[in-house]
Amino acid sequence: MKKILITTIPFGDPQPKPLEMLKNAGIEYTINPFKRKITEDDLKKIISEYDGLIAGTEIISKEVIDLAEKLKIIARVGVGTDGVDLNYAKDKNIKVTYTPDAPGPAIAELTVGFMYSLLRSTHSSNIQIREGKWNRSIGRSFSDMTIGVIGAGRVGSKVIDLIDKIGCKNLIVSDVYHNESLREQYGFDWATKQEVFEQADIITFHVPLTADANGMVKKEQLLSMKADVLIINTARGGIIDENDLYDVMQTGHIGGVAIDVFEQEPYSGPLINIDRCLLTPHIGSASRECRAKMELESVQEIIRFFSNQELLSPVPEAEYLLQKI
Amino acid sequence: MKKILITTIPFGDPQPKPLEMLKNAGIEYTINPFKRKITEDDLKKIISEYDGLIAGTEIISKEVIDLAEKLKIIARVGVGTDGVDLNYAKDKNIKVTYTPDAPGPAIAELTVGFMYSLLRSTHSSNIQIREGKWNRSIGRSFSDMTIGVIGAGRVGSKVIDLIDKIGCKNLIVSDVYHNESLREQYGFDWATKQEVFEQADIITFHVPLTADANGMVKKEQLLSMKADVLIINTARGGIIDENDLYDVMQTGHIGGVAIDVFEQEPYSGPLINIDRCLLTPHIGSASRECRAKMELESVQEIIRFFSNQELLSPVPEAEYLLQKI
Repeated sequence: MKKILITTIPFGDPQPKPLEMLKNAGIEYTINPFKRKITEDDLKKIISEYDGLIAGTEIISKEVIDLAEKLKIIARVGVGTDGVDLNYAKDKNIKVTYTPDAPGPAIAELTVGFMYSLLRSTHSSNIQIREGKWNRSIGRSFSDMTIGVIGAGRVGSKVIDLIDKIGCKNLIVSDVYHNESLREQYGFDWATKQEVFEQADIITFHVPLTADANGMVKKEQLLSMKADVLIINTARGGIIDENDLYDVMQTGHIGGVAIDVFEQEPYSGPLINIDRCLLTPHIGSASRECRAKMELESVQEIIRFFSNQELLSPVPEAEYLLQKI
Repeated sequence: MKKILITTIPFGDPQPKPLEMLKNAGIEYTINPFKRKITEDDLKKIISEYDGLIAGTEIISKEVIDLAEKLKIIARVGVGTDGVDLNYAKDKNIKVTYTPDAPGPAIAELTVGFMYSLLRSTHSSNIQIREGKWNRSIGRSFSDMTIGVIGAGRVGSKVIDLIDKIGCKNLIVSDVYHNESLREQYGFDWATKQEVFEQADIITFHVPLTADANGMVKKEQLLSMKADVLIINTARGGIIDENDLYDVMQTGHIGGVAIDVFEQEPYSGPLINIDRCLLTPHIGSASRECRAKMELESVQEIIRFFSNQELLSPVPEAEYLLQKI
């Protein structure tokens, strides 16, 4: 009987269908016994006994893979694969799949919700009212904003679609690949990253954590932005340097930020001391509908693999190449 | 020289144009000397020396009006007139104007932002992460919700327009007056208040604080709602009984609430102890663009009045009648 480990939690709750499918396929599963975000060390302790892994965003390093003697497949619940050493997994003949399309709508909704919160400072009001402060800050309206989107891929294009419907009039987009049909559909202007940093009132990041994206935004970039800029990161921790962000915000620069992803998770850094930071625990894809879809798709890949069927969403070759750069 | 009192703050900041217009028209003004939400007692102390009043949501009672010996005009910045004893003002030959159209877009954006925050519990995550808690709660997606709108007037119809654009598929609306052209445009169903309470996943209130609306939602109504219902009040405190809301939420019923308006403001009641309450300090109309428009319109009414021109937005007769009921 094949045994798999499910590290990402919650899983199969409230919808138990994916777990039932595993049972019916004769696959034994263990759900993250640590009941918190699993660490590399945790994984090293238990990975050796499993034939398959349904994974979250945890680090699956060379060291983990070396200890994973039986492991034949990693099915990532979600889209980012920066946590997995893809090329080393390939060397060890371990397949890696992901669920690229499921998270887009949920991340886009979280992102647009962040825009509305930041525009009216509802997140900081909600903290201050609990401290006995009644600060009626004057917000801004959505339609007056120049919105800058960095990365127009699966998630970024969903964000563009949603803000277009809501009535965004001034949209600038930066991407290494210029998808012209997207531009024609929504009528935005292409810009360089630096142009977005300097011109946008709201900047939102939707790029994978490649070597190029890691540390993309440091002190220099933050200081080149408008004094009351609103910044959103629902993509990956590491894109914005957290220490630099803290230092720059301490000076009063930057109107507000909403951050869902951190270099180290769970996050416990100093940004918690700044009211105008809206901080959430990596919940971009954590909607009931999106989770259900991702859990289902990852379980289907596991079942396909162990019944010798072709995989539907193997991580594409380009992602392997990106990790080699 | 005419002297007016401006009670609502901030005013003329950051855009000083309304104050410059008063100056140019030879009208002397004093901005709220108490530098906080003015009370009935504050007003009683200083109202006697003013010919005009640019007012917020404060109580302008018979007693205040009796002391306002010179007062000839009240220009309300905003739309609600429940704070002003309209009929007594009329008896004393004091005109009352308001700015009915300006707040709609800003309140609608705050309301939709609240929906997004509640759907993903970003407000409670933001508090919990500051307490060292990393609770990855599973949210819900906008398009799966049945949204119930109570009141489809100036603000409610703006909310309906915005959520329709975003992709609300299931909309039910309750109003004493059935605006059929609105229904045809957006394709929703009319429902009674009680039907909305029982069927909606998100309920948002956009009614004036008439005698009928005061205490509209008490324990009985709250308990008739779905266990994970999300409730939004950006209209007026008093519509939802705050004590009943606290008691019912303490039992675990109700998924989340976002409240911008309170029976007594500034608010300092027990709802601040419940994480799933998103509380803001009456900022519905507090956007830069909306404030600028409302300040301008109220100043224009003051200037028109003192130069014997016709008023553009006197409070309509219906509002006087409603206060007599």
